[in-house]
Amino acid sequence: MSGEPVFDKLALLGIGLIGSSVARAARRGNAAATIAAYDSSKDVLARAAALGFADSLHEDVAGAVRGADLVIMAAPVGAYGELAKAMAPALKPGAVVSDVGSVKSAVLRDAGPHIPPGVHFIPAHPISGTEQSGPEAGFAELFDNRWCIVTPPQDADADALERLKEFWRRLGSQVEAMDPHHHDLVLAITSHVPHLIAYNIVGTADDLSSVTKSEVIKYSAGGFRDFTRIAASDPTMWRDVFLNNKEAVLEVLGRFSEDLSALQRAIRWGDGDALFNLFTRTRAIRRGIIDAGQDSAAPNFGRDPKKS
Amino acid sequence: MSGEPVFDKLALLGIGLIGSSVARAARRGNAAATIAAYDSSKDVLARAAALGFADSLHEDVAGAVRGADLVIMAAPVGAYGELAKAMAPALKPGAVVSDVGSVKSAVLRDAGPHIPPGVHFIPAHPISGTEQSGPEAGFAELFDNRWCIVTPPQDADADALERLKEFWRRLGSQVEAMDPHHHDLVLAITSHVPHLIAYNIVGTADDLSSVTKSEVIKYSAGGFRDFTRIAASDPTMWRDVFLNNKEAVLEVLGRFSEDLSALQRAIRWGDGDALFNLFTRTRAIRRGIIDAGQDSAAPNFGRDPKKS
Repeated sequence: MSGEPVFDKLALLGIGLIGSSVARAARRGNAAATIAAYDSSKDVLARAAALGFADSLHEDVAGAVRGADLVIMAAPVGAYGELAKAMAPALKPGAVVSDVGSVKSAVLRDAGPHIPPGVHFIPAHPISGTEQSGPEAGFAELFDNRWCIVTPPQDADADALERLKEFWRRLGSQVEAMDPHHHDLVLAITSHVPHLIAYNIVGTADDLSSVTKSEVIKYSAGGFRDFTRIAASDPTMWRDVFLNNKEAVLEVLGRFSEDLSALQRAIRWGDGDALFNLFTRTRAIRRGIIDAGQDSAAPNFGRDPKKS
Repeated sequence: MSGEPVFDKLALLGIGLIGSSVARAARRGNAAATIAAYDSSKDVLARAAALGFADSLHEDVAGAVRGADLVIMAAPVGAYGELAKAMAPALKPGAVVSDVGSVKSAVLRDAGPHIPPGVHFIPAHPISGTEQSGPEAGFAELFDNRWCIVTPPQDADADALERLKEFWRRLGSQVEAMDPHHHDLVLAITSHVPHLIAYNIVGTADDLSSVTKSEVIKYSAGGFRDFTRIAASDPTMWRDVFLNNKEAVLEVLGRFSEDLSALQRAIRWGDGDALFNLFTRTRAIRRGIIDAGQDSAAPNFGRDPKKS
């Protein structure tokens, strides 16, 4: 099976960091024979032309998806309803429509109703990314050794599902199927709330007038700089994530705040044992992540001067 | 001046990650002619003997500091009172006593009263570290291009202060003087509260029974893994930081929680503009940190597969 492409024609709707990485990885892994790309920005299309990762570039959604065997939406999730509406009349019977969005229930809600019968709608989410944006930021290795979660409807076509999974394996990912609501809760804890907290602490630091911005920057190696990386992620994408995973984010945030209040109280009352016990427990999670190949074991992520 | 050591004999009290890195960096930078080391753990002393970064190893504080021109406490700050008491009778007149602790007001409070007249007590804090612990984790480059904050008393001896600054410059750092109370507030925002938040979110994730631990680990590349690095830091050291910088930590934590409540409300009411505006503002701070040479510009800290 690895001898021929999984899909003949791939259409990408959105070619920023993720969309352009899908194109590059699909090329590298022989996952699609030809790649058509649409973007709402003419500037992005012009830059993509120079980068050369797509076979054809389109200013209209229908032009990109016509004849496509796999369509992947790779725009901020707030745009999915309009994208699905625009692509519907041009979709080829038997095509697979999917996406890369960080929320899954809202995708089914917004895009689902527009997908015509005879087209297989199977949402997906590669757990992968960087803090950078735009077609220049993409690279073929982005999905290597990362997980891609697919959230097929109960009555999903078995063949279409298997081809979508094989597509992601060709891009370097491991694939797992999950219920969309469970996906949204898992991602709220492993991605959405961590991003919100990072954005928040960076905002708090920026506002603290008794500590200057230059001090915040100079002394950031004490821990703060780690948060600024994810707080530099794409604002539009993340606005849409929070607006479209409200329930799970608010649920996890409630627990986070409750736990933080308990820690605050432990500090106020000098309860060193409570602090020590939590700080010991959290070390084990880090080891689990390194053992699972999901992060570097090198100190400071290996970014600092090398050990001699 | 760079031709001869800044201090003849250096005594290190504590030789974990930071203490052993000071020894290695002092050797590399010719900052001290001989290095004596004490540790409260016989096991650590035995491992340090094998690593060979010290000229002499001591099971008693007085034995290590006797004849030393510079004494540096590099143990968790909760131990400083006892260390200062133990070293006092053996201190050489004219010696400089310093430390590497992450809090400074409490250091002056706990150790200050034990330092005899004629000995110069000048606390210091290198803003540098990794999530690892123990003498094996140390390395000579740890302080390169990082800041070291000194908090000299108002009547500090000018010559002693200058020699301590030169010592840290030889270790690779840039040095800045600061008021101890201001230090504690700056570090609360750039280090202490970020660590507390990281410990807290990792604990919340571990407790969320509707999401399994294996899911938290598998899908951690969505952002969560960044927090686990600093939540893997030394539990004893960090317990002592929070117990000894209570006031500033609670002040910053109060602002953080207030800001987080506002974000929570924005999500609940669907205020996309409030989210977008914050997420745009925080990007600028990241750029400032990279421009100041305090973090890697590479996406994902450069830890993932390289761009092709």
